[in-house]
Amino acid sequence: MKRAFLVITHGDMGIETVKSAELLMGPLENVTALGLHPGESVDSLRDQAYEVLDKNAKIYDETIVLVDLLGGSPSNVSLSTLARYRDLKIITGLSLPLLINLLNFTSSEENTEKLINDSINVAKDGIKMIDKNFLQHKGK
Amino acid sequence: MKRAFLVITHGDMGIETVKSAELLMGPLENVTALGLHPGESVDSLRDQAYEVLDKNAKIYDETIVLVDLLGGSPSNVSLSTLARYRDLKIITGLSLPLLINLLNFTSSEENTEKLINDSINVAKDGIKMIDKNFLQHKGK
Repeated sequence: MKRAFLVITHGDMGIETVKSAELLMGPLENVTALGLHPGESVDSLRDQAYEVLDKNAKIYDETIVLVDLLGGSPSNVSLSTLARYRDLKIITGLSLPLLINLLNFTSSEENTEKLINDSINVAKDGIKMIDKNFLQHKGK
Repeated sequence: MKRAFLVITHGDMGIETVKSAELLMGPLENVTALGLHPGESVDSLRDQAYEVLDKNAKIYDETIVLVDLLGGSPSNVSLSTLARYRDLKIITGLSLPLLINLLNFTSSEENTEKLINDSINVAKDGIKMIDKNFLQHKGK
């Protein structure tokens, strides 16, 4: 299955998260990022999101949307696109481990819900506190 | 307890994540972000991290470090600063919910490990898949 990814965040966080992923993984042609900046309208962001989704629909089997957090304008915009894209999957809580895991396994995992759930678990496991004790345990 | 935060990532992801948090929370004077860019040395990033930590040590009771993911240069640099800052706490898997929760509760929570563990749990809960079914359940 050929999948694309659309990242939507407040500000340029999503755009730069994709660029940081590219530093680690090389160019990511199937990932687009949009940001909502001060003074920009939510309607304009929605139009941009539809533009990406419409374009992707001609090239890819599906688009998975990632947003920075549940409850802000980026997540509201992505939820509103469910009106046209009924089967769209949206993931909240964007992080680099989440994005990288999705990208790493998108070509080998046909089942989209499994891909997403596995990536969510990897992203959750990737949130850890480390300190001197962590290093001592690791060294044992 | 007066806490500062230092965000270190590949590229400008961290810098823009802090700016996105500022869009939601207003100016964040106690947060500094550093990025490792192509062609820049890890030694230079370590020097910059020490510069921030040394400066913060004069103003704040402690600095909590956040990095994009465990295992890359930003996390290695932050781990190396444990040589001078033995009690430093580092959190891997930077996301907007993680950063916002830390900032929201830093002034009310004296116990640093509790602040961090609570914020990690909030960040983990904030990673969700939402789709048309989620909306239907929410509407019930």
